[in-house]
Amino acid sequence: MATLKCPAHAPPPSEDAEQLRKAFEGLSSSLSNFNPFSDHFRLVIDTESYGKQMLPFAGWGTNEQMIIDILAYRNAAQRISIRKAYSEAYGEDLLKALEKELTRDFERVVLLFTLDPAERDAHLVNEATKKASSSSWIIMEVACARSSKELHAAKKYYHARYKKSLEEDVAHHTSGDYRKLLVPLVSAFRYEGDEVNLSLAKSEAKILREKISTKHYNDEEVIRILSTRSRAQLNATFNQYNSSIGNAINKDLKPESKDEYLKLMRDVIKCLTTPEDYFEKVLRQAINRIGSDDTAIIRVVATRAEVDMVRIKEAYQRRNSVPLEKAIAGDTSGDYKRMLLALIGAGDV
Amino acid sequence: MATLKCPAHAPPPSEDAEQLRKAFEGLSSSLSNFNPFSDHFRLVIDTESYGKQMLPFAGWGTNEQMIIDILAYRNAAQRISIRKAYSEAYGEDLLKALEKELTRDFERVVLLFTLDPAERDAHLVNEATKKASSSSWIIMEVACARSSKELHAAKKYYHARYKKSLEEDVAHHTSGDYRKLLVPLVSAFRYEGDEVNLSLAKSEAKILREKISTKHYNDEEVIRILSTRSRAQLNATFNQYNSSIGNAINKDLKPESKDEYLKLMRDVIKCLTTPEDYFEKVLRQAINRIGSDDTAIIRVVATRAEVDMVRIKEAYQRRNSVPLEKAIAGDTSGDYKRMLLALIGAGDV
Repeated sequence: MATLKCPAHAPPPSEDAEQLRKAFEGLSSSLSNFNPFSDHFRLVIDTESYGKQMLPFAGWGTNEQMIIDILAYRNAAQRISIRKAYSEAYGEDLLKALEKELTRDFERVVLLFTLDPAERDAHLVNEATKKASSSSWIIMEVACARSSKELHAAKKYYHARYKKSLEEDVAHHTSGDYRKLLVPLVSAFRYEGDEVNLSLAKSEAKILREKISTKHYNDEEVIRILSTRSRAQLNATFNQYNSSIGNAINKDLKPESKDEYLKLMRDVIKCLTTPEDYFEKVLRQAINRIGSDDTAIIRVVATRAEVDMVRIKEAYQRRNSVPLEKAIAGDTSGDYKRMLLALIGAGDV
Repeated sequence: MATLKCPAHAPPPSEDAEQLRKAFEGLSSSLSNFNPFSDHFRLVIDTESYGKQMLPFAGWGTNEQMIIDILAYRNAAQRISIRKAYSEAYGEDLLKALEKELTRDFERVVLLFTLDPAERDAHLVNEATKKASSSSWIIMEVACARSSKELHAAKKYYHARYKKSLEEDVAHHTSGDYRKLLVPLVSAFRYEGDEVNLSLAKSEAKILREKISTKHYNDEEVIRILSTRSRAQLNATFNQYNSSIGNAINKDLKPESKDEYLKLMRDVIKCLTTPEDYFEKVLRQAINRIGSDDTAIIRVVATRAEVDMVRIKEAYQRRNSVPLEKAIAGDTSGDYKRMLLALIGAGDV
């Protein structure tokens, strides 16, 4: 269940494109008083992007509000049409224009959300293969929290955009246990039906138990089961594990030591079975951190607003006794905050 | 380049379906003289299927010829239309009807060819996961000798037909080194463009050389390279290997011992770079064997007639100084022979 709100009668894409162009032009004309080459100019934009409202002249905020009012209230198909209309009318990719006009966190959330989901996933994975921090988690999310069709669409987009395959980049840029787990996960094309083979669930729960109890967490059988079985089958297997062993599998994957690979493994299981709980945790940790982790907040909001943000919000409220809207509003500011709130269905708060 | 010959103006599918129905009915009415429950009857059918022409009455051969004349001369799209028309007109799947009417090798080649390519590949892999002999090779062929799109189509069909994923069956029914190699191969969604990264080709040729020279044939880096890189990139890598090492990679993968895993690995490389040479070898070995390997002949002819059989025939002639038509005609007989020859473009021989 998505939090994204689209008006019952959205304007035609050409009109949205025109309004966006006006928003950009308003931005530029407001800026004509400035010397665009001065350092001051750059600084002002950067500060503004944090939403501190330090800019003295009117119209500025309005323009950004217009961008929010359009893009945060259109679904994926509508956003594609707007991009098409924009490029036809002005000979420029809307994404490029947004990139030029916006900055920092506001820029990132607008750009990421405006992208088509397949394009966005390909972009996230490509970015993840180029940096170290938290990249395994981003790759894992795209592999485990998308439908088989969506994951395949991301792979097709990856071919077209990067002239290579998503799997080859993941395989090339990971190593050790992480590679062993992540490459099969991104390569999967899981069956998505409800059919469950109960005797298979029993035998594979037993295999998991044997391997986990002897600490063979990276065993190929464990990885085979996690990376090839359908969500329904895995659910049955974990239920078998739970009822026959008396422990949830994720409890057994939590030894005293703070092993990052085991953490990733637990998150794989969480992402495959209860994605809303996984994303709730990502948001909670991102918000609670000293100096909140905005890339994580942006990623979760931009990728889940059109999918299951309603459930994530419920999970957040349950776990933190505070509405997600309130937590995000308290942690962010300005246009960036307004965009996030609009996407999680609290644009009027 | 396909050997399949389709008439410039094929009859409408409904007419083809009607002719096939008549062929089946002719078969049944000819049989009305027999007691269909006698053992003799069964024996006669089985013998006939080998094309020994032992049946005394007229019409029999004609009916099977009609099946050949239609199905061996229609492309994949036309065969789908005929199946649809047949099922609409007679309330029965054409495949089921063929299965009832035909037997043995003739049945197998007609059925296998009539299937839609994605359906056929899914069927071949599913069958391979259930038996031991040569199954790794069949799985490897589907993984390495199909385009990314074709392999994905087979996976989609596998979901629909078997209610699970192709990869999970392959992963579940293989083990050891074979699993390590085959699962990534069937999971791949390779990039198919011509772009080549030469410095990557150099560095990966070096990795391959290091691993092969120390006999680490099942090393994860070797498998990563073979299972994720595009055909164009692999070609560049193997060329680098050849020119910097002075040996073709497949020469280095041929130690004295008759290691089956190494043979599979060499065939992976052959299948990815020169599939016509790989399939020429499969046909050569199948034909030259004492008591020829008909399942292999049928598989290669049914899967390649519409793809690259012209090249395979050229490779066969080059290697054996005998046309493939002549070799197959000398090794097979009856309707089975006629169907094979029609598919390799020598139906009038």
